[in-house]
Amino acid sequence: MKGLFITFEGIEGSGKSTQAERLKERLAGLGCKVDITREPGGTPIAESIREILLNPSNFGMAPTTELLLYQAARAQHVIERIRPALNRGVTVICDRFFDSTTAYQGGGRGLPLQELEALHAIATGDLAPDITFMLDLPPVEGLSRAGKDHASDRIERETVDFHTRVRNAFLDIAAAHPDRVRVIDATLPIDEISERIFSVVGPVVESR
Amino acid sequence: MKGLFITFEGIEGSGKSTQAERLKERLAGLGCKVDITREPGGTPIAESIREILLNPSNFGMAPTTELLLYQAARAQHVIERIRPALNRGVTVICDRFFDSTTAYQGGGRGLPLQELEALHAIATGDLAPDITFMLDLPPVEGLSRAGKDHASDRIERETVDFHTRVRNAFLDIAAAHPDRVRVIDATLPIDEISERIFSVVGPVVESR
Repeated sequence: MKGLFITFEGIEGSGKSTQAERLKERLAGLGCKVDITREPGGTPIAESIREILLNPSNFGMAPTTELLLYQAARAQHVIERIRPALNRGVTVICDRFFDSTTAYQGGGRGLPLQELEALHAIATGDLAPDITFMLDLPPVEGLSRAGKDHASDRIERETVDFHTRVRNAFLDIAAAHPDRVRVIDATLPIDEISERIFSVVGPVVESR
Repeated sequence: MKGLFITFEGIEGSGKSTQAERLKERLAGLGCKVDITREPGGTPIAESIREILLNPSNFGMAPTTELLLYQAARAQHVIERIRPALNRGVTVICDRFFDSTTAYQGGGRGLPLQELEALHAIATGDLAPDITFMLDLPPVEGLSRAGKDHASDRIERETVDFHTRVRNAFLDIAAAHPDRVRVIDATLPIDEISERIFSVVGPVVESR
């Protein structure tokens, strides 16, 4: 049986990485084989693309270039790591996937949705997550959290207005895909968020 | 008046760079403003993408990743350098452009033409060259020439069979776009090739 593909989405500072790690630990505790990864990145070639994307000195990057680089990193990640793991029955937990591209390059940069979706199909070979958790919170709070633990990268340096458009695009995606996407209030206590996530994933894992 | 956009295409070792440089000198001698550039590359961001593409240690790069990286570099090149130059009336001479992607990723890697053309449109914003010179020669001869002046990169290490498919794809492109593309026998003496190229460009420049 193919593995479950679970993604975490949300603006900077929404706690995606923490929750992805917690879910991995909990599933591993149940004996599930789990591969946890992130985008952009997840393979050496994709990580080298990530470096170009996040380097603050590349401030003159055109939105279309940015879009194509995210998709290039995704293509390598899907082909080299995600699909092979799913095919071996491994559950894959990914911190960001194509919804981030729709939200940041569509909502944030204003690129047309049709162009984004054509590229999603090319880059993923039509792979979509089984379950997506969207951790939602106000951008001001997310950026303040994100600023606490590391120097800001090229995307984090965007304005609050940019991040507000991104958040709204995430909520639009959730509304358009209610079967796949669960929105979770990321201002809740960390343990409470973890419980809500596991209350969705646990039954799916047990039913397989 | 917008500048002329002239591209040089062909397999490795076909003499594109030499001829592009000679054409630039000749046009500059006539008082034309000329910007000579190359793909992948031509801007700092695009050059950093070029490094990933040509690095021999990235031998596990998926064809779709490769395609998206070439298009990402092209998008930045068109937006940051080529279009602004053409809009200022500067003639742009480019060593490789989208025909190389069609030939290498389509003919060489077998990616579908429809996917390639959708990406060309996104990456270039529908910009096409005014004139393309396709320098044609047998792959064995081209690779032997290319091997003489530098260590082989990731693409040059492909098989002769790969480069033969690329050459055939170039000839198919020329057949499909007879108004834009001129095929030139790259086994001719260098001076003869330069004359043939200038016999096409000269009258166009004089008529403007």
